Amino acid sequence: MAIRCTNLILLTIIASISSALRPNMIIFLADDVGYGDLKSYGHPTQEWGPIDDLAEEGMKFTSLYSTSSLCSPSRAALLTGRLPIRIGVYGKLMNFYLQSPNGLPKDEITLPEILRDVGYATGMVGKWHLGINDYTPMSGVHLPHYHGFDWVGTNLPYTNVWECDETKRHMDAPDPFNCFMYNNETIIQQPFSHQHLTKTFVDEVSTFIKQQTEKDKPFFLYLSFVHNHVAMFTGKDTKFTSRRGIYGAGIRELSWGVGEIMKKIKSLGIDNNTLIFFTSDNGGHIELCSEGGNNGILKGGKANYYEGGIRVPGILRWPGQISAGTINSNIVSQMDTFTTFVNLAGGKAPSDRVIDGRDITQQIFGSLKLKNETKTEKRILFFYCNDMLFAVRYGSYKVHFYTMPVKSKEEYTDTCGEGGFPSTMYFNCLYCPSDCVIKHDPPLIFNVDADPGEEYQLDPALHKLLLLEVKYLLEKHNSGWIKGEDLLSAYNQPSQPCCDSSKPSCSCNYP
Amino acid sequence: MAIRCTNLILLTIIASISSALRPNMIIFLADDVGYGDLKSYGHPTQEWGPIDDLAEEGMKFTSLYSTSSLCSPSRAALLTGRLPIRIGVYGKLMNFYLQSPNGLPKDEITLPEILRDVGYATGMVGKWHLGINDYTPMSGVHLPHYHGFDWVGTNLPYTNVWECDETKRHMDAPDPFNCFMYNNETIIQQPFSHQHLTKTFVDEVSTFIKQQTEKDKPFFLYLSFVHNHVAMFTGKDTKFTSRRGIYGAGIRELSWGVGEIMKKIKSLGIDNNTLIFFTSDNGGHIELCSEGGNNGILKGGKANYYEGGIRVPGILRWPGQISAGTINSNIVSQMDTFTTFVNLAGGKAPSDRVIDGRDITQQIFGSLKLKNETKTEKRILFFYCNDMLFAVRYGSYKVHFYTMPVKSKEEYTDTCGEGGFPSTMYFNCLYCPSDCVIKHDPPLIFNVDADPGEEYQLDPALHKLLLLEVKYLLEKHNSGWIKGEDLLSAYNQPSQPCCDSSKPSCSCNYP
Repeated sequence: MAIRCTNLILLTIIASISSALRPNMIIFLADDVGYGDLKSYGHPTQEWGPIDDLAEEGMKFTSLYSTSSLCSPSRAALLTGRLPIRIGVYGKLMNFYLQSPNGLPKDEITLPEILRDVGYATGMVGKWHLGINDYTPMSGVHLPHYHGFDWVGTNLPYTNVWECDETKRHMDAPDPFNCFMYNNETIIQQPFSHQHLTKTFVDEVSTFIKQQTEKDKPFFLYLSFVHNHVAMFTGKDTKFTSRRGIYGAGIRELSWGVGEIMKKIKSLGIDNNTLIFFTSDNGGHIELCSEGGNNGILKGGKANYYEGGIRVPGILRWPGQISAGTINSNIVSQMDTFTTFVNLAGGKAPSDRVIDGRDITQQIFGSLKLKNETKTEKRILFFYCNDMLFAVRYGSYKVHFYTMPVKSKEEYTDTCGEGGFPSTMYFNCLYCPSDCVIKHDPPLIFNVDADPGEEYQLDPALHKLLLLEVKYLLEKHNSGWIKGEDLLSAYNQPSQPCCDSSKPSCSCNYP
Repeated sequence: MAIRCTNLILLTIIASISSALRPNMIIFLADDVGYGDLKSYGHPTQEWGPIDDLAEEGMKFTSLYSTSSLCSPSRAALLTGRLPIRIGVYGKLMNFYLQSPNGLPKDEITLPEILRDVGYATGMVGKWHLGINDYTPMSGVHLPHYHGFDWVGTNLPYTNVWECDETKRHMDAPDPFNCFMYNNETIIQQPFSHQHLTKTFVDEVSTFIKQQTEKDKPFFLYLSFVHNHVAMFTGKDTKFTSRRGIYGAGIRELSWGVGEIMKKIKSLGIDNNTLIFFTSDNGGHIELCSEGGNNGILKGGKANYYEGGIRVPGILRWPGQISAGTINSNIVSQMDTFTTFVNLAGGKAPSDRVIDGRDITQQIFGSLKLKNETKTEKRILFFYCNDMLFAVRYGSYKVHFYTMPVKSKEEYTDTCGEGGFPSTMYFNCLYCPSDCVIKHDPPLIFNVDADPGEEYQLDPALHKLLLLEVKYLLEKHNSGWIKGEDLLSAYNQPSQPCCDSSKPSCSCNYP
């Protein structure tokens, strides 16, 4: 009954909103692409590509944060506008694994669910990483189709690991157990070939967009690229070469994919009615040497909570609404996408739960070509590792209650192989808690406006007021707190997917 | 006679070149501004300013090298198109000091000398650092006026050191001995006040530009800013504040200065006939913590020969000739400015000596909005520290024969004061030779296209062909070599300048 009521109100709202305020919306999500990986974010040798064109044509964020420095919690927050700790996407394994019986909970309300309710076609291709099966192998109960996506194309419910690399740089052979590709709810390759992956995404998405446009139906598309995570790959086309090597070639293919879809949008004449958001799920994986991302001058990277792990590239483009070449330096969270997109679609965010994302419409639309803001907003963002509050960003400051050690450039020279070939040490430090985690009491303080590289500690004794403010905000944050059930600790061998689950060895149509 | 002949040929050439090919030319030179200091080069928190506008409106270089990682040799090369070792701007002190009896040699032919000969008005304000007096105090024989600048406004013949800082952050009081300001050949303040310095430069330059424009005379202007070197300062105007702190504020004032001159150029209607080149003399001085520059992801900085010391920002703007938003990723040297500017002016580079700079006209003019080049040109650049060949950049590679150790981020946390207040350790390593210099045999090799941060060494045994090619090019470089007389070792107490040299204590009109 409550739901019906809500729908009625929503329909009334929709009726009163012009179609111009209900743009098509696309999220291009990259995997482990760091703050400094793109030319438009300052990489000296990475080639310029269509993603950089988006920045030139739209708004570039310089203080956008992913909610977590690891895949599953970050993606859960992006799609729900809520901290992973509220949803339950935390736990000792830190991510969903292919043996996890859990996934994004059914009672979480996702962005596509709301958009679908207000008349949007919703589609998804690419990496999911928010659960597959429960305790029944092949049940597929956590797949994207069950979280608001009406159309789901080629997708990787898990992630793209070294064991999937057909070039055998790191492993003897692709391992079917770890590497499987779905189309909607059906496994179609195990292990899968990367060769035509991006092309497949582009083709499927182009068809989806064309169909909705012909129906004059607004759409929401979530294209979660497989690039540039771990198993480096590009198609055989020579356009995917890079002076930056294999990682740079991956960025080029990623950017090419974005560019092809932009061409489609322009050719369909829906460019001015389509809002594009490009971002990455977390920072670059610096332990992977030349096969890991680059976080620019930011310290640390994937898995830790220095800026390099969580401050990510972010580009928003909507011709006519956002002036080309705008820079937004406000503190913004990827969770804001949820709230902002819901409002732009004429939807309504749930009122029965805490939503951590904010509507940032006022910051971004009808903007002049703005390059600078005068001061840093005193917004607070909370960063958890598992269920431990690791750090907060507050105004100009970053306050770390815990940190993980990061390696210096000199150490990379020692631990990486010739020319930056990755060592097998995947993470310098990963789990929370663990022996490598360092507690700071009093906390470690940096002014990340003055010192975005977190090089120069501030003396806590000289920043008592700051710490008092943070303490007050933390108490407020903790009061009335509802922590979700831990979903990232359970591990269940039989829930692995398989092309043919009746066979003992998991193998399908790999050549 | 030879000179007359040359002039005749030049005059013939000039007559055949349209005025559009003889643009006004301005070099904006910043001091110690690193590759990562500007927003347009990726700094996450530095405010956008008029220098960044130049990049948006023109061509941005991503592989531009200063010739040296220290002031005097770098500036000598910029103005002559020749390696400092040929000119003699090398020696154990590494730079000209205020007690140096030497300066840029008279028989070196400078860019303004050639441009003056082909009809340009030549002007200069700001930092010189290419010599003052000889053994006679106040002789002023090395001042800019004697090197082709017809008009010289307010200038610092030496440099801007901590002892000049009126805010007394680092020293008890400004030291008149080190701090003096000239107008052309006359000392006008000792010590000097920074308060209106940039404004003075802007006003003087604006008048110079206006006068030449009224006379319809093409001009060459060398505005060598005092920002951002060591003694941090900004005017009292609130527009010179920065979320990045004192260093960022300096960048803002520098950028404001550029912006004011651009306004003047536009208001005079000479925008389309004026070529602007912005660059920096060497990389950021990282030992100075939060008061030193930022070299982005490049390793090292000022005084050493990792990329951070010599790869610098560079922007070229000429509306109608250079497409807005172009990126030039070719290997380019600041010495190329000499040859290119000479040719554009219809002049002729000297043929009686080796000129190391190249004419890069074809790379930059009539360009499409080009963002990428397909491959790295196999050009070689030589980098000397004093008279020791430290490193070469060759094609995609950097080959180091010697290096200086650089500190890791973690070490900065230890050696810098609260929030990045500089320690008194000015350089981690400076002199060549010295105990801190590390010899590499076989040389240290990096692929700086794949790894611009010079993190991942290449195995010399796997790059024998590369080393052979470099060896061949070095032999070619060394054959027929004429090394200039060492000018940076002599030190002569009495040659210090003084407002009134008859008085024993050097003091003038400081308030």
